Amino acid sequence: MMAASEWSLDGWMTTRLARVEAALDAWVTDAPVPTLGWGAPSTLVEAMRYAVLDGGKRLRPLLTMAAFDALSPSRETSSETAVLRAACAVELIHAYSLVHDDMPCMDNDILRRGKPTVHVKFGEAGALLAGDALQALAFELLTPDDGSVPLAVQGRLCGVLSRAAGSTGMAGGQAIDLSSVGTRLDEPALRHMHELKTGALLHASVMLGAVCGQATDPVMRALSDYGHAIGLAFQVVDDVLDVTADSAALGKTAGKDADNDKPTYVSILGLEASQRLANDLLVKAHASLKASGLADTVALAGLANLVVQRSH
Amino acid sequence: MMAASEWSLDGWMTTRLARVEAALDAWVTDAPVPTLGWGAPSTLVEAMRYAVLDGGKRLRPLLTMAAFDALSPSRETSSETAVLRAACAVELIHAYSLVHDDMPCMDNDILRRGKPTVHVKFGEAGALLAGDALQALAFELLTPDDGSVPLAVQGRLCGVLSRAAGSTGMAGGQAIDLSSVGTRLDEPALRHMHELKTGALLHASVMLGAVCGQATDPVMRALSDYGHAIGLAFQVVDDVLDVTADSAALGKTAGKDADNDKPTYVSILGLEASQRLANDLLVKAHASLKASGLADTVALAGLANLVVQRSH
Repeated sequence: MMAASEWSLDGWMTTRLARVEAALDAWVTDAPVPTLGWGAPSTLVEAMRYAVLDGGKRLRPLLTMAAFDALSPSRETSSETAVLRAACAVELIHAYSLVHDDMPCMDNDILRRGKPTVHVKFGEAGALLAGDALQALAFELLTPDDGSVPLAVQGRLCGVLSRAAGSTGMAGGQAIDLSSVGTRLDEPALRHMHELKTGALLHASVMLGAVCGQATDPVMRALSDYGHAIGLAFQVVDDVLDVTADSAALGKTAGKDADNDKPTYVSILGLEASQRLANDLLVKAHASLKASGLADTVALAGLANLVVQRSH
Repeated sequence: MMAASEWSLDGWMTTRLARVEAALDAWVTDAPVPTLGWGAPSTLVEAMRYAVLDGGKRLRPLLTMAAFDALSPSRETSSETAVLRAACAVELIHAYSLVHDDMPCMDNDILRRGKPTVHVKFGEAGALLAGDALQALAFELLTPDDGSVPLAVQGRLCGVLSRAAGSTGMAGGQAIDLSSVGTRLDEPALRHMHELKTGALLHASVMLGAVCGQATDPVMRALSDYGHAIGLAFQVVDDVLDVTADSAALGKTAGKDADNDKPTYVSILGLEASQRLANDLLVKAHASLKASGLADTVALAGLANLVVQRSH
């Protein structure tokens, strides 16, 4: 990493985003697999690419790469391959969850980032299968059979990602969300839902980078605290923006959660207390970085600021 | 394994099935995870258990355990844990695919094995999430963090299973199936669809057992040939039974594929040639077992016979 005086978050993000976009473009593919003699069917891959290559913020891959950079490892090729694969894998899990979330039986959204959602464009069956295949592809990316990622690292990465995606993580949070519409959640119950629904995958994004960077146990714990803090902060800020931002800035319908009678931080704590909570979590994230004892946490610090101070 | 004179496939299957059923019952659970402080939401787990613990034939787990047994390893605890986890993981992938397949946007089936399908009982959103969580749980099972399965083995198992489940495997085959209704497939195209849709996971079932049993490369290749042969035979026999068996024996509507204008082996090759093909594949499976040089392949041989000679 460059000296602090030359370093900028924007510059750091630009180089990392370019790598992630190029890798996703290359890895979500219908190119034949030499060992099989065939590739994925192009109709399926078209829907998968539509879901993934559509200009998301890529916050999760950036967190993975920032955690890896903070560990300043010796930058062996194998580690760099591992972290790029991990960064893309977590984005594929995020992308699949959006595809399934948008389906008629879930949120029934017809637009995402100004484009028709996957089931509108490819049909419900196409969206269902594209989501299913994206989840599998995440684990395929983590387990290359070319020796580029040590097998033991593959095992650890799959362990972290599957738990964050599954019934005690993201899918579990969505199930709680589904059963909580129209009910009164108190703050601990709301927090628990978000810890699973969005927090688990954001937390895992940091942990995947830490695994690739071979963090020691104490550093792993400090980065885990950082991941929990920004995971929750992300959702609190989302709820605040749902009330304070306009639809154009958000790129989605503002006020939708309140209209749908979904419990939010703002509806439970009020706007001001929610904003205070977001800032408290930001302070906590920075404190965790300090506690890690790592010298070079500028990217992680910058991403934490970005999560809390974003306008959309 | 017992001497050949005392050994019976039924006896072997009974002990293995008991282990698989007990393990699935224990591992598809809402019990709190100590490291997290919470468990999966019970509404979600109820749907997952309904999908999994409903008395399937468990052919895939049996193949995994039979391949492991054929390698006659030293039966260390760690390997036995690995093979049981792998056997259950492949069954979870199979179970999730049935849940999503039955949904209204796919096959729109309301009954499976005489019971209401998951979306009928738990709603479409509940079925979608249960399937998603079952896929993740498969990879969670393969990656225990208690040291019971070596990390390198975890990595290999996740690699095999994710490729079999994904866009060049099961999900890819379903996408081809979806786009082939009402079209004329020739035999190579039909074969390709089934190699992905059902063959890939059956093949992977064998490979997972081979990985747990630390098969050498030549043995791996022979078992791979066996897996391909029975994977295809399974589907050919399915198509034959769709025509020759009655609905009561099948536990599902006979003649359904033909009625839906789905291409089948029988519709392309005719009944007699399909039955010959199934027998040729059985001969090929047995030849592969012989080529493996393994001494004790009775369970794999018995399962191959069962696949081809079954009546439902």
